Amino acid sequence: MDHSFCKKLSQNIKTRSCYVCLGLDPDLSKIPDHYSQTLTGLTDFLLDTIKATKDLVIAYKPNLSFFEAMGIEGLRIVEKVRSAIPEQVPMILDAKRGDIGNTSAMQARYIFDYFGADAITLHPYMGRDSLAPFFNYKDKYHFILALTSNPSAMDFQKAELSSGGYVYEKVINTACKWREEFHNIGFVIGATQKELSYIRKKDSESLFLIPGVGAQGGSYSDAHTYGRNKDGLVLINMSRSLLYCSKDTDYLDLIRTKIIEYKH
Amino acid sequence: MDHSFCKKLSQNIKTRSCYVCLGLDPDLSKIPDHYSQTLTGLTDFLLDTIKATKDLVIAYKPNLSFFEAMGIEGLRIVEKVRSAIPEQVPMILDAKRGDIGNTSAMQARYIFDYFGADAITLHPYMGRDSLAPFFNYKDKYHFILALTSNPSAMDFQKAELSSGGYVYEKVINTACKWREEFHNIGFVIGATQKELSYIRKKDSESLFLIPGVGAQGGSYSDAHTYGRNKDGLVLINMSRSLLYCSKDTDYLDLIRTKIIEYKH
Repeated sequence: MDHSFCKKLSQNIKTRSCYVCLGLDPDLSKIPDHYSQTLTGLTDFLLDTIKATKDLVIAYKPNLSFFEAMGIEGLRIVEKVRSAIPEQVPMILDAKRGDIGNTSAMQARYIFDYFGADAITLHPYMGRDSLAPFFNYKDKYHFILALTSNPSAMDFQKAELSSGGYVYEKVINTACKWREEFHNIGFVIGATQKELSYIRKKDSESLFLIPGVGAQGGSYSDAHTYGRNKDGLVLINMSRSLLYCSKDTDYLDLIRTKIIEYKH
Repeated sequence: MDHSFCKKLSQNIKTRSCYVCLGLDPDLSKIPDHYSQTLTGLTDFLLDTIKATKDLVIAYKPNLSFFEAMGIEGLRIVEKVRSAIPEQVPMILDAKRGDIGNTSAMQARYIFDYFGADAITLHPYMGRDSLAPFFNYKDKYHFILALTSNPSAMDFQKAELSSGGYVYEKVINTACKWREEFHNIGFVIGATQKELSYIRKKDSESLFLIPGVGAQGGSYSDAHTYGRNKDGLVLINMSRSLLYCSKDTDYLDLIRTKIIEYKH
């Protein structure tokens, strides 16, 4: 809870009475019809969305791959998104990085120094020395993929270990030990996974970023009931179900209304 | 062997008599002193390097993170690198991607459509549906991280499964089954791993991309002795030990000489 990222989150959850992290997955084919079908139109759509929601959501999670898919000009939009998000609302750049140490250091430079993200998502597969260069950014936060929301999460994450438990549990247990040195580590746990409550019971402390509510079918109510840590913190990400809730001119009103419905 | 990527590789190995894939990890602080310490200087360094080596190496592997670390202007250099590499020499963009399906599709668009890479490296953690959008690019090739060259590879990759074997073996065995549908899947196996010969014995077919020779301490000779598949193909990547072999004006001569030393 001492971490500045968690402090902001705690304040936002208190004052905004919800757990909604708005995922920004820009897709030209899905934006309302009154925006031009150009990168300028898409930028306007995103900046208008942030303006309309920045007093409601607890965080934003731009999905970097959706910007990358539009090439270098798409990445310029990330810079504009960063500038539009107020300091009180953390920006998690969903980039799913992780490599050998000297390369991870470069990735951290891109995500934290260049884009100014407050947090990142990380692949655990290459182990501790592949993630430490990120953790060394002590004022930033890190969400390690543990049990993801997609059906094929079972392929490797749910492989059973000879020492007991599954691969995703080993990722959680091992990374929890890393917290003796680094205090900025949380996990991605999919809302579509029935294991969420089981994982929370075994670990009351870790902060979870929970995708999979909305378009992927997970329940918001289960996600915060079982997802909150002992400090009452959790991030429930929704992207498509909010961002593409309308193709009409009522879009900005509707996305506000939809987020307000999640208030407790 | 039917795959166009493998055909090019096979021809290159035959005519160039080596297995060297040149890793491009651009680092301003390490380039020869006669290049200006600017992105222009770095671009010249990379283009000169490609010009001096494109008749010698079997492939190039730009490490995308090193370009990203320089921000958007760094990514413009990737476009120039792509244009400078001849069609006969495949370009593996080392990007280590992998996400839920709709996001992986965006990543594939960036790496293959936008940058025109011939191959990519992928994180296996999220399973089959996270990688299929890449495999669907049938003329492209995919190297899944199996057993990586960094010490912490042991954290999760060498976790023992209750069904026998280790996590990395399950990744290999499972992905080999995916080849019933997709014929464009190989693996990343670190040269620093003593398991290389054991893995090859159990799987004579898969194409391996082997990092870890040079700066990381792996042996070139072991890497090709144990790394080649039944068609005689393997990619042995070297980055720092070649790219930064000299800070003097003899650099281009020296990198040629050093690669030629690997000829068999």
